[in-house]
Amino acid sequence: MNIRNSSPVITLTTDFGTSDPYVAAMKGVILKINPETKIIDISHDISPQNIYETAYVLDKAWRYFPDGTIHIVVVDPGVGTDRNALVVKAANAFFIAPNNGVLTYVVDGPFEAVSITNPPFWNQPVSSTFHGRDIFAPVAAHLSLDTPLSEFGEPVTSLVTLPKTKPYFGSDGSLVGHVIHIDRFGNVITDISRDDVPRNPAIHVKNYVIEELSPFYAEGDELIALIGSDEKLEIAVKNGNAAESLNLSVGDDIVVRRKP
Amino acid sequence: MNIRNSSPVITLTTDFGTSDPYVAAMKGVILKINPETKIIDISHDISPQNIYETAYVLDKAWRYFPDGTIHIVVVDPGVGTDRNALVVKAANAFFIAPNNGVLTYVVDGPFEAVSITNPPFWNQPVSSTFHGRDIFAPVAAHLSLDTPLSEFGEPVTSLVTLPKTKPYFGSDGSLVGHVIHIDRFGNVITDISRDDVPRNPAIHVKNYVIEELSPFYAEGDELIALIGSDEKLEIAVKNGNAAESLNLSVGDDIVVRRKP
Amino acid sequence: MNIRNSSPVITLTTDFGTSDPYVAAMKGVILKINPETKIIDISHDISPQNIYETAYVLDKAWRYFPDGTIHIVVVDPGVGTDRNALVVKAANAFFIAPNNGVLTYVVDGPFEAVSITNPPFWNQPVSSTFHGRDIFAPVAAHLSLDTPLSEFGEPVTSLVTLPKTKPYFGSDGSLVGHVIHIDRFGNVITDISRDDVPRNPAIHVKNYVIEELSPFYAEGDELIALIGSDEKLEIAVKNGNAAESLNLSVGDDIVVRRKP
Repeated sequence: MNIRNSSPVITLTTDFGTSDPYVAAMKGVILKINPETKIIDISHDISPQNIYETAYVLDKAWRYFPDGTIHIVVVDPGVGTDRNALVVKAANAFFIAPNNGVLTYVVDGPFEAVSITNPPFWNQPVSSTFHGRDIFAPVAAHLSLDTPLSEFGEPVTSLVTLPKTKPYFGSDGSLVGHVIHIDRFGNVITDISRDDVPRNPAIHVKNYVIEELSPFYAEGDELIALIGSDEKLEIAVKNGNAAESLNLSVGDDIVVRRKP
Repeated sequence: MNIRNSSPVITLTTDFGTSDPYVAAMKGVILKINPETKIIDISHDISPQNIYETAYVLDKAWRYFPDGTIHIVVVDPGVGTDRNALVVKAANAFFIAPNNGVLTYVVDGPFEAVSITNPPFWNQPVSSTFHGRDIFAPVAAHLSLDTPLSEFGEPVTSLVTLPKTKPYFGSDGSLVGHVIHIDRFGNVITDISRDDVPRNPAIHVKNYVIEELSPFYAEGDELIALIGSDEKLEIAVKNGNAAESLNLSVGDDIVVRRKP
Repeated sequence: MNIRNSSPVITLTTDFGTSDPYVAAMKGVILKINPETKIIDISHDISPQNIYETAYVLDKAWRYFPDGTIHIVVVDPGVGTDRNALVVKAANAFFIAPNNGVLTYVVDGPFEAVSITNPPFWNQPVSSTFHGRDIFAPVAAHLSLDTPLSEFGEPVTSLVTLPKTKPYFGSDGSLVGHVIHIDRFGNVITDISRDDVPRNPAIHVKNYVIEELSPFYAEGDELIALIGSDEKLEIAVKNGNAAESLNLSVGDDIVVRRKP
């Protein structure tokens, strides 16, 4: 089934930054093969080689794109080794990525996948250090021209996934969650869902206790907790940077108790 | 009157940065509703929640775009409060923004405006912290499909504006202007227009006096003054950073006298 | 001969950064004249006024774009002086740039060039500090509409070029190359080509000796040398920043000897 529309969208998520020629080279390769694509940057500012951060950012962006969008992900510390690279079709979208866990959150149901092993679609010679330009970009462009998945390589039935953090209940009945992302504003995003937060919550962060949920950022005068745009518990400081103020990092614990 | 062309342009001006998924989510939402739009970034590097800087950057960019361009602005410290959000038509362009002053410079004559109150055009559920994705982006996309302004909400007749700095004459007849922007090069842009500068000017900046206007950046050997690309008096250092060298900030005074 | 396709691509390479309105103003000017162009950023994060870095980044990106692509380059410390600005056609691509050396690597064979001297294609009034917006962008847009080169100005037969570094053989038979670029990852790219590296090489960098070429980044445990994506010798640190660890800068020597 062809689920793409007439003006195919290809997104890019990399750790390449924007001061080097790498991102532009990929875009040129795509446009040379299919000049009709719309290329959209998700981010090129992923921390170098941070697979976990990539998986998070991709997950919070891909779902808003039109059906049939092709998402290229190049955060690939294993480039050139025998790690395989994939084309995956899942949830009416396509993903082209190294098989290293960056798709952990996006592939959450049935999927079709192939390992990219068929050289005719690649740019020759293939650099051993830049598969983004020589393999991922041309494969994405050919995919946008309706080349079937099976042309790119052999079927794959299981994907590498990262361990997913999950909140758990401590021995005293408190809910222990984790910081999963810190955004540009210093807002601290956790893995605790809206439905996990009890009524009358007391949220413990480092040595502070937040005694209620605020409805939005502008509320409150200092440290606040609220449900963010991805339906998760978030810690913020009005007009400030919560992560810096509290010295919080990805992986840190956030504890929620019910007030007596 | 339909003033849009066949390939509608939507611009984005935010303080979201480019390492988080926020900007991409907005682009996805737009393309899902109208795949034919061209999305152009004005800037995502506005200092967090800096309404004044937003108003300046938007003003110096929007006027160069084709008639009918739709400019989305999401610098919105009051998101989720009862601040209203607007669709404004002015000077053959459209602006979708919180009503917090970011349009101070761009709406400078007659305008039509509505408060965005009509939920059918929004993404549901609407996050209280991310109206950019759930309200502004889908409204912009529907506007690009020729939905009339009146469909989005109730008419509004006055807009929030920021106090505009203006140069004034001091008691000794000198002209006192202000720093209104500092750019990436450290060039210091003032609110003093070309026509305000007297013949034979002496420009006083901190403890320095600049004795003439240079025609362009490459002229002179040290601290120079010139008329910049927006027709305002600018202070620069050849191959250097004037703002850092002189420790200048937005709001600082610049004094111009006529040489005897 | 018309070598452009129906959806012309215009790329931008500048030192403007992305927090000021300058890049967006150029894009608006282009779209106003030719709404059908696809505008692609090569980079706006060139170090301010760094002509050498511009020449390098442009060279590693332009060749991947479709035939007929128009590349605008605005790293232009001499803007407003009598330096001339050019439209160059070379190798089935077009370049619009100041004649200051930024095209050193891309124009490497026969070319046609004109000096941009014909005002009817410019935005009036022309700012003496922002030719990118008032001259380069409108000229590019008109070029994308098939205006012939000769309309923009008078023919030019020689271009300003930067001195090119080249590896040379030292008195002891060792090959002495130079650092020509440091990328976001801290990978150190040299001017030594794959074919210049002898069998059984010993690569001397500061006080370290690297005893072999690695096939890709993930190999090795510390400091490595490999052939990068532009077929040049590169120094890297696995999961680290080689340039910082070794305190290397552009221009530094890298010495390659043959092991006995």
